[in-house]
Amino acid sequence: MTNKVLELIQSKKFHDARMVLLEMNPVDIAEVFEEMDPESSVMLFRLLPKELAAETFAYMTAEVQESLLTALTDTELRPLLDSQFMDDTVDMLEEMPANVVRRVLKLSDPDTRSLINRLLQYEEGSAGSMMTTEYVALKQGMTIRQAFDYLKKNAVDSETLYTCYVTDQNRVLEGVITVREMMLADYGAQVGDVMEEKPISVPTSASDEEVGQIFQKYDMLALPVVDGENRLVGIITVDDAVDVIQEANTEDFEKMAALEPSETPYLKTSAFTHARKRVVWLLFLMLSGIVTGQIISHYEEAFAAIPLLVSFIPMLMDTGGNCGSQSSTLIIRGMALDEIKPRDILKVIWKECRVSMLVGAVLAPVNIIWIWIRYHSLPIALTVGVSMFVTIFIAKMMGCLLPMFAKRCKLDPAIMASPLITTVVDACSVFVYFNVALWIMHI
Amino acid sequence: MTNKVLELIQSKKFHDARMVLLEMNPVDIAEVFEEMDPESSVMLFRLLPKELAAETFAYMTAEVQESLLTALTDTELRPLLDSQFMDDTVDMLEEMPANVVRRVLKLSDPDTRSLINRLLQYEEGSAGSMMTTEYVALKQGMTIRQAFDYLKKNAVDSETLYTCYVTDQNRVLEGVITVREMMLADYGAQVGDVMEEKPISVPTSASDEEVGQIFQKYDMLALPVVDGENRLVGIITVDDAVDVIQEANTEDFEKMAALEPSETPYLKTSAFTHARKRVVWLLFLMLSGIVTGQIISHYEEAFAAIPLLVSFIPMLMDTGGNCGSQSSTLIIRGMALDEIKPRDILKVIWKECRVSMLVGAVLAPVNIIWIWIRYHSLPIALTVGVSMFVTIFIAKMMGCLLPMFAKRCKLDPAIMASPLITTVVDACSVFVYFNVALWIMHI
Repeated sequence: MTNKVLELIQSKKFHDARMVLLEMNPVDIAEVFEEMDPESSVMLFRLLPKELAAETFAYMTAEVQESLLTALTDTELRPLLDSQFMDDTVDMLEEMPANVVRRVLKLSDPDTRSLINRLLQYEEGSAGSMMTTEYVALKQGMTIRQAFDYLKKNAVDSETLYTCYVTDQNRVLEGVITVREMMLADYGAQVGDVMEEKPISVPTSASDEEVGQIFQKYDMLALPVVDGENRLVGIITVDDAVDVIQEANTEDFEKMAALEPSETPYLKTSAFTHARKRVVWLLFLMLSGIVTGQIISHYEEAFAAIPLLVSFIPMLMDTGGNCGSQSSTLIIRGMALDEIKPRDILKVIWKECRVSMLVGAVLAPVNIIWIWIRYHSLPIALTVGVSMFVTIFIAKMMGCLLPMFAKRCKLDPAIMASPLITTVVDACSVFVYFNVALWIMHI
Repeated sequence: MTNKVLELIQSKKFHDARMVLLEMNPVDIAEVFEEMDPESSVMLFRLLPKELAAETFAYMTAEVQESLLTALTDTELRPLLDSQFMDDTVDMLEEMPANVVRRVLKLSDPDTRSLINRLLQYEEGSAGSMMTTEYVALKQGMTIRQAFDYLKKNAVDSETLYTCYVTDQNRVLEGVITVREMMLADYGAQVGDVMEEKPISVPTSASDEEVGQIFQKYDMLALPVVDGENRLVGIITVDDAVDVIQEANTEDFEKMAALEPSETPYLKTSAFTHARKRVVWLLFLMLSGIVTGQIISHYEEAFAAIPLLVSFIPMLMDTGGNCGSQSSTLIIRGMALDEIKPRDILKVIWKECRVSMLVGAVLAPVNIIWIWIRYHSLPIALTVGVSMFVTIFIAKMMGCLLPMFAKRCKLDPAIMASPLITTVVDACSVFVYFNVALWIMHI
């Protein structure tokens, strides 16, 4: 479909292209716009029916949105902005240069303008910055029939209407009622009697991770956001929560691979930005690699006497690093999913202790046997086997303790992942190795 | 709250405990049951109101469900099973021993029994195994008013009613209509005129990753699942999709840390199982570490002549490994989110090429300078610097090519992550290092 549209555009058949687009989903249409040159995209965008254009606009990337915002006239722009939900507008403005933001604010009516300005002030990634202000608020005294009528009237303007919120005259959140509950209730019943009291809510300052966890745990379609006085200020809908969950996951993947998190997709990020996001951690970890090298230099006499010792260093270092990253990954992920809590630290240590014994009991003998057979030297075989066992233990301990320690210090546990643990474990393993060698072989 | 309930149970105050539970959310009540001994849990479960008991049951872990299923009488069990949604029942049965499954099937009516048996046959992780069969199916000829009445009557029995499906007499999926659209339409309008045609759907064989991607892309509340003849057989709701997305992420995290994926949470997995899930990969990667060792042995004469050379090996290996895992993580994640497609391979190679030049242009000179200053040997400094530059390039290339290659071979790209790439890059870096040394220093 996409290729077809692009071909039609290249041969300037805009009206045929339009016919194909009309058959497509707004999400997919937005993707087609990504591939067009700015001029064609403005041309084609003008040909779309107003409603479809507005829906498609919300799914476009900041780049395309910016080129449209710059090219369209005020008259074209106003209905587009009006039909957008508040959270999408704010997300969009966060990415735009100042002149576009000014233009959008100028085109909005005073109420919307002050609302946008307020929403723009919430910290990025906080519940306040994620929420939308288009929700349905009912009153306790309404009957279910009145509530339905109210819904029918306000359906266009609210991002979700399946979960409605019940507030008092000061906008304090009193309860929540779903359309399903309303359907099951009598038309004459009162909202206050049907609603669920004490609904789960988050403060505007809640982090994206917390929001994601709540959605995952409680299977909600929308989550109310309240201010310090428990007044309802907005809602977060499940489709935004899905995005937030995926963003939080991506951030963890990146941090765990020694990358500074990035918000733009891989292919849209310049090589220079990619390099910048990678080089700081690499430099830092390289310096720790130097420490391991210094430890090795310190035992120059040992491997001058038995050069074979050097050839087992990579295997020891790699296995130590892998053991550590296995443990750290499990702990970091467990904490991100709230399955492991800081108070479980002793249980975790005890488990990793036993796991390292079991793993060591497999890997160490394997090494002792093959080295003995291959090089006919029991002392060297024992040196590698014992070092392997100790390294695995140290690696597993580091792997579980460092992320939990980070969490206790209010740091993101994800930074204590494989790259950092690998370099720390490397230094330890080399140190252990040469000391075991000196001890067993009396070099 | 949890602690309060547990204290009350310990002092046998079951009715007081019940009062506290009644104030809580089913998800949280289920968590309390996790902490109780089996006898108390059966006792307390019987005290819960029927509806709350059923809701809580759906959120319990397989362990607690099993102990309840074994302890409760047939009369107690039947309403519990009746009120459960079909996908939850099937998920539960997948975890239960054969005798419990038989008992549950015996208690179900014949229709349900054959449905359960059919659903149990879908492969785990496929759309068929995730879907529920409780959906609302409307006909094109209904008016909106009739549809609302139908909804009101069937609201209890369907997992979601906000998205309704329009099918013909052969159950072929013709369209989708949301309650929001119904609310905006006239009561007299026909469903067929209001509905959206050609809705997005998946076959029963679709994977959990595909399902997750569709939910994330199209912001849906429910996704229809169809058979080979486009007949509607079930739906997947967004709350299950959130779980699926998180499970797919966890699996990637685990595979990327050389762990065999596990379905049980960290703390609920025995040390023995943990060890088993880790040791196979460790053994395999250890063997690759041996190869690197063999390469080093091969150059014994070189480092016998200049022992200092050995001390730069860890830094080179670590940096290579980190560079490789940075690239592989970005590519693997990009492909999981469908941001990078197999056809982008040339773009990716070109980008990684430039990134590796930029990163190398920072790290190599840093090494040349500090080694020169510290050891007053330009040849050694140059050896390390040049090797670093080449290693970074190789690592970045491996990091992007291996995952994309895996994808092309229909393997999961996540297995081509940091541990595997690290060991491959290790061998390359050592090989490059000693050859550069021989070349520059004519040893």
